[in-house]
Amino acid sequence: MPRLRIDLAYDGTAFSGWAAQPGLRTVEAELSAAVSRILRLSEPARIVVAGRTDAGVHARGQVAHTDVPDEAYAAVPGRAARPPEEAATIRLNAVLPDDIVVRRVTPAPPGFDARFSAIWRRYRYRICDEPRALDPLRRHDTVVVKERLDPDAMIAAARNLLGLNDFAAFCRRREGATTIRTLLDYTWTREPDGIVAATVRADAFCHSMVRALVGAVLPVGLGRAEVGFPAEVLRGGIRDPRVKVMPAHGLSLEEVGYPADALVAARAQEARSRRA
Amino acid sequence: MPRLRIDLAYDGTAFSGWAAQPGLRTVEAELSAAVSRILRLSEPARIVVAGRTDAGVHARGQVAHTDVPDEAYAAVPGRAARPPEEAATIRLNAVLPDDIVVRRVTPAPPGFDARFSAIWRRYRYRICDEPRALDPLRRHDTVVVKERLDPDAMIAAARNLLGLNDFAAFCRRREGATTIRTLLDYTWTREPDGIVAATVRADAFCHSMVRALVGAVLPVGLGRAEVGFPAEVLRGGIRDPRVKVMPAHGLSLEEVGYPADALVAARAQEARSRRA
Repeated sequence: MPRLRIDLAYDGTAFSGWAAQPGLRTVEAELSAAVSRILRLSEPARIVVAGRTDAGVHARGQVAHTDVPDEAYAAVPGRAARPPEEAATIRLNAVLPDDIVVRRVTPAPPGFDARFSAIWRRYRYRICDEPRALDPLRRHDTVVVKERLDPDAMIAAARNLLGLNDFAAFCRRREGATTIRTLLDYTWTREPDGIVAATVRADAFCHSMVRALVGAVLPVGLGRAEVGFPAEVLRGGIRDPRVKVMPAHGLSLEEVGYPADALVAARAQEARSRRA
Repeated sequence: MPRLRIDLAYDGTAFSGWAAQPGLRTVEAELSAAVSRILRLSEPARIVVAGRTDAGVHARGQVAHTDVPDEAYAAVPGRAARPPEEAATIRLNAVLPDDIVVRRVTPAPPGFDARFSAIWRRYRYRICDEPRALDPLRRHDTVVVKERLDPDAMIAAARNLLGLNDFAAFCRRREGATTIRTLLDYTWTREPDGIVAATVRADAFCHSMVRALVGAVLPVGLGRAEVGFPAEVLRGGIRDPRVKVMPAHGLSLEEVGYPADALVAARAQEARSRRA
C-alpha cells in the first residue's frame, strides 16, 4: 500500500476540530470521506495527522498521511492525463467542502509518518487590541481584546519560556503522558495592519498548550503582570488560575517541519518510543 | 440637527448589499436600526452612504452620514464619561452584529454629505489564480480562477482605461444617468501571499462598473485577449458580451476621499447639480 502525504488548509470555524467524533462535523471525517470517495474505497480511509487541532482552530499548513490500496490509487480519475498526485489533488478539492483546501498530495518517503516524523509544529495566534480597527472579514481568525497591548513586553516575557522545559503548567494533565517539550520559538510582532501576532514553534505541543502560552503572556502585554510572570508560572509546574486558556479561533497551525527524506523513518521510530 | 459622519467596515457575505430592502438583511437596515436604538429614536434613522455596495461586496472604508436630533445625541449612554462621538462608537459596536464594525463617529463639517461630498472611491478586487493555494479563511473575499494570471499584462491593459471617459461599456444603463467618469487609478499587483489584486479608484462608479472593469482585464491576464482589448471595449461604448461582470465577493470598498472641511459643502453642491 503506497503512503500518501496530504498537505492541507482549513477554516476551523464550522468544524468540531480535527478528530472524528460521531455526529459532529470534523476535518478528519470530511477528509477521510473525500479520500474514500475519490479512491472508491468501501470504508472511510484512515488518516494520521501532524496536529490534532481543537474545535475552532484553523490550519494553513496541516500535514496528514493515508495508506491507499495500489489498485485504487491507480484508478483515480484523471490519472491518464496527469501524474497521479496531481489528479488526486484536483479530485480531492472537487469533492471537499469550501472550508478545506488540499494544497498537494505527494508520495510519502519510506517510513514517513505525518505525526511521528514531524520535528516541529509552528502555530500563529492573532489578536486585535483595538476593537474598532478589526477587519470584520478577519473576525473568524482574530481574537479581540479591549485594551492596548505592548508587544515589546510580550516579546521579553515569551523569551523566558524557550528551551527544553516541563510545560505541565500549560498542559491539560493526561495520565502517563509527558509534558516535557522543547519550545523553539515564541515571539510577538505588531503587523502592518495593527494585529498583534504570536509565532509559537515547538517539537510538539500538549493539548491547549499554545493557547495557554498566549494566555500567560497576555497579562504582561496589558501591563497587569511583570515580564517574569510566564516563567514563574512555568516553574510552578501546575495550572495557574491567573493564566487564561485563550479562545480557539485566534489560533492557526501554520507549518509542520520534517527532517530530510532519509531521516523520516528514524525520526518516527524515535518519537514513537519516546511516547511509549 | 447635528450631522454625524460614520466610518465603518463590513463583511458583505451575509448581506443583501447596502441598500435597505423589505424582508432582506442589509447593512443600511442594520446600521439604521443601531443608530435609532442608541439614540432611542422612534423610527429608523435615515442614512446616506458614499458607496451603495451590491450584495456580497465588502467594505473596509465605507463612509455614511446621519442627522440626529440634538436632544437624542446629548443622551447617548456613556456620554458623561467620554466625548459623545467616542460613546456613540462604543455603543454602536455593542449593538451591531459581528459582521459590521464602526471605526469612528465624528461630527461632520458644515455641508458635508457622505455621498455628494466624496471626490473619489477606492475599491480592491482579490483573485487567487492557483486554487490549491487559496487560504480557506479568505475564501469570502477572494475569487478563484483556475489558470495563472500575468499581472504585468493586466497592468498594461488597465492603464489604457485611465482618465475622463464614457464608461457606458462597463455600466448597467440607467435612463437619464451619465456614464462619464474619471478613472484615477487602475493597477494590479501580485501580493506576497500570491493573490493578484486590483486597485481601482474613480470620482464615482456606475452600478457594477468595478466588476466589469476587472472582467475586461481578466482575459488579458489569462492570455486570451490582447493588451488593447479593454480599451477597445471602452471605445465600443456598449456592453460587450466578452466582458464578464466578476463575482461580488472579491470586491471591497477600501476608502472614500473627501476634500478639506472648508470645501465639502461646495463639492456636494457641485456633484448634486452635475447629477441633476
